[in-house]
Amino acid sequence: MADQIKYTLTEQDMPKSWYNIMADLPSPLPAVLHPGTGQPVGPADLAPLFPMEIIKQEVSGERWIDIPDPVRQIYFQWRPTPLYRARRLERALDTPARIYYKYEGVSPSGSHKPNTAVPQAFYNKQEGVKRITTETGAGQWGSSLAFAGSLFGIEIDVYMVKVSFQQKPYRRALMESYGARCVASPSTETNSGRAVLAQNPDSTGSLGIAISEAVEMAAQRDDTKYALGSVLNHVLMHQTVLGLEAKRQMEMAGDDPDVIVGCTGGGSNFAGIAFPYLGEQLRGGRKRRIVAVEPAACPSLTRGKYAYDFGDTSKLTPLVKMHTLGSSFVPPGFHAGGLRYHGMAPQVSHVKELGLIEAKAYHQLACFEAGVQFARAEGIVPAPEANHAVRGAIDEALRCKREGKSEVILFNLCGHGHFDMQAYIDYFGGKLKDLDYDAKELAMALAGLPSVAAE
Amino acid sequence: MADQIKYTLTEQDMPKSWYNIMADLPSPLPAVLHPGTGQPVGPADLAPLFPMEIIKQEVSGERWIDIPDPVRQIYFQWRPTPLYRARRLERALDTPARIYYKYEGVSPSGSHKPNTAVPQAFYNKQEGVKRITTETGAGQWGSSLAFAGSLFGIEIDVYMVKVSFQQKPYRRALMESYGARCVASPSTETNSGRAVLAQNPDSTGSLGIAISEAVEMAAQRDDTKYALGSVLNHVLMHQTVLGLEAKRQMEMAGDDPDVIVGCTGGGSNFAGIAFPYLGEQLRGGRKRRIVAVEPAACPSLTRGKYAYDFGDTSKLTPLVKMHTLGSSFVPPGFHAGGLRYHGMAPQVSHVKELGLIEAKAYHQLACFEAGVQFARAEGIVPAPEANHAVRGAIDEALRCKREGKSEVILFNLCGHGHFDMQAYIDYFGGKLKDLDYDAKELAMALAGLPSVAAE
Repeated sequence: MADQIKYTLTEQDMPKSWYNIMADLPSPLPAVLHPGTGQPVGPADLAPLFPMEIIKQEVSGERWIDIPDPVRQIYFQWRPTPLYRARRLERALDTPARIYYKYEGVSPSGSHKPNTAVPQAFYNKQEGVKRITTETGAGQWGSSLAFAGSLFGIEIDVYMVKVSFQQKPYRRALMESYGARCVASPSTETNSGRAVLAQNPDSTGSLGIAISEAVEMAAQRDDTKYALGSVLNHVLMHQTVLGLEAKRQMEMAGDDPDVIVGCTGGGSNFAGIAFPYLGEQLRGGRKRRIVAVEPAACPSLTRGKYAYDFGDTSKLTPLVKMHTLGSSFVPPGFHAGGLRYHGMAPQVSHVKELGLIEAKAYHQLACFEAGVQFARAEGIVPAPEANHAVRGAIDEALRCKREGKSEVILFNLCGHGHFDMQAYIDYFGGKLKDLDYDAKELAMALAGLPSVAAE
Repeated sequence: MADQIKYTLTEQDMPKSWYNIMADLPSPLPAVLHPGTGQPVGPADLAPLFPMEIIKQEVSGERWIDIPDPVRQIYFQWRPTPLYRARRLERALDTPARIYYKYEGVSPSGSHKPNTAVPQAFYNKQEGVKRITTETGAGQWGSSLAFAGSLFGIEIDVYMVKVSFQQKPYRRALMESYGARCVASPSTETNSGRAVLAQNPDSTGSLGIAISEAVEMAAQRDDTKYALGSVLNHVLMHQTVLGLEAKRQMEMAGDDPDVIVGCTGGGSNFAGIAFPYLGEQLRGGRKRRIVAVEPAACPSLTRGKYAYDFGDTSKLTPLVKMHTLGSSFVPPGFHAGGLRYHGMAPQVSHVKELGLIEAKAYHQLACFEAGVQFARAEGIVPAPEANHAVRGAIDEALRCKREGKSEVILFNLCGHGHFDMQAYIDYFGGKLKDLDYDAKELAMALAGLPSVAAE
């Protein structure tokens, strides 16, 4: 038999707990603040939006949090996911590096998002919630929550950024296949949406606007809560299931990563792959390079300010300290819709600020070039978001080639591109361009950051 | 822990051989005939189109044929595939039946097709072939061969039925992502294509026409061969890898299927799930019901004639005895493009004629209804082709409910619907209609069957 390319865990090997990095952070995360009072928010402030178990997880300092049995039972449908050694890509690059990737595209919705959609739906169900509202950009999150809702019999209302709603009818159809309702945002259903449309009837929307709409709808009804697909602590924690698996699989492979790469939009798939390793380091273990790769057109980690900001455009959410481009910032319409968010997860921002991780930004053409090279070598067409991680990993492998080093590179391939083929059509047709944010708009958005007395 | 829903094999458990039903057939398959002479074809007749190893497999009487190590190595990327117990679907149907499904959508191209694309590309590579031509309907086969070609560095030219080429730009983009060339058929590149266009410039194509184009191009160049994604004996044999796995997984589950269901276009995914069980029966083992489900708009098994016919429209292929609607028959444009073929695999036709399997035809609305019910229960959106198998399995489960029987039903979910969401959009939008073939056209096509002295 030839060289091994896949490392498979049994269901028995699937992690029984999520890893919570809060337990190991060298300094605590800055408090979440109430926008009115400037004081730290308490559980009661969040109760209209989230079930109590989620709120507890959001603030927990426990290192390990049990994955409930019914959630594990559903995880089993696609988990443990495979870890691959990218031998064919290594040969194509002629690199001495050993490249591994964790592949989350095998989930029902084709990305890592169900890892948190399922427990969020479960905890909501436990507390009697009948309906969950949410937002989605490219649609990975919306379709994942739609999937989870169908399993637990919870109605799902998804506010989908209008430009994606129009460009990605297949994603919408997937949500509807799972029985969810999908609404183009800004919509006329909410005050937030109507306010945006009054100012700009042609608004193509943004994640910040869609969050405002979903939060507003959830706050209005007692039987309705809100769910977020990234950014928050509990979401990042749910994603550690993938990194904990990858860690065991790397041990099976007998290799230990020197560099860990993930793409960052809100930060959840990146945290999923990185935090189990970072936690080990923070507890005195080996230090590894950890690289967050973000789009140059929406560069919160590399160009944003580490400051208190709103999570949404209408300023309905609490204030969190994060790397942000300003909640009024609207990135240009590049194809990785899942990375078009003005802020970054507070936990990821915090460890970046502590110098524990690196960040790097790429334009989209370089990412698609990497994605096509990957597809031709490995047989999997990545989502545009995942192409950022592929680019980052390939560049590390090329560096190893230049330096003659056989380092071990691990990256997270967070989803497949089956619903994003229009982007590839544009790329092959020469219609895809590198896009840049408007520097003036960024300056204005940063100037408009809320002033917070506590800072 | 709750009830098990997934049965996973290790890579070590993956079959080391394909199963060849030729060894166990109670009567031999009718010979393949040369259309000019009416005499059985020999290897030399097929050599311009296929590598010798494939020709050997096509006529082999060996029961087990080794899967070459390099092919197994590539299979490992997604194989063994999971077998699921559809417990949530069972609950939704409130049936005493136990429903299991084998899921082939986890392959890089999202269907069972790479199971044969990879060995076909491998054998071509071994014999120095530089380019392979093929046809594709919905695109599952074309993208699978494109994937396999990219792994072995073989150029792939795909003639895609024009109506699918236009309706499914994402499938085409997937082929191009793997580096293949995809041409709308009928094209101006071939005599066959030009002849069709001369008669009907607006022709939207058919699988029969696309096969003619691919065969013609392969016959023209020494370094070019042809590959077929279904129908032929070696293709069906390659697909038994999935049924052999399913059989072991059913043993793990401690259940034995009373009914086995698969959808049939050319017959390969059906043979893949059914033949390992049927072979056991033919060797004196248990008799099980085996049900082939086909589209009512292209009903070769239920309405076709068992007769010698051409595999293509331009009558370039040898004559094979099969259930056929006539090689000039063009089915209406229903959404399961992979099932729009005028003929049926000779092996499947043969066992049907021997009374060893049943056949059933459904219109498309009933299939989409079943597919959506399945998606909401099980989380996977099936391909329109696979919806036929889902419909068949659900109807068996509902029969069990009426009869109060807890039978075991196994079906093959041969692919996911990520590239077919337009069909679901049409279905949800009320735009999908049940289509019927033109009875007059069918009568004419059947009247035009070649007269074969040997019959």
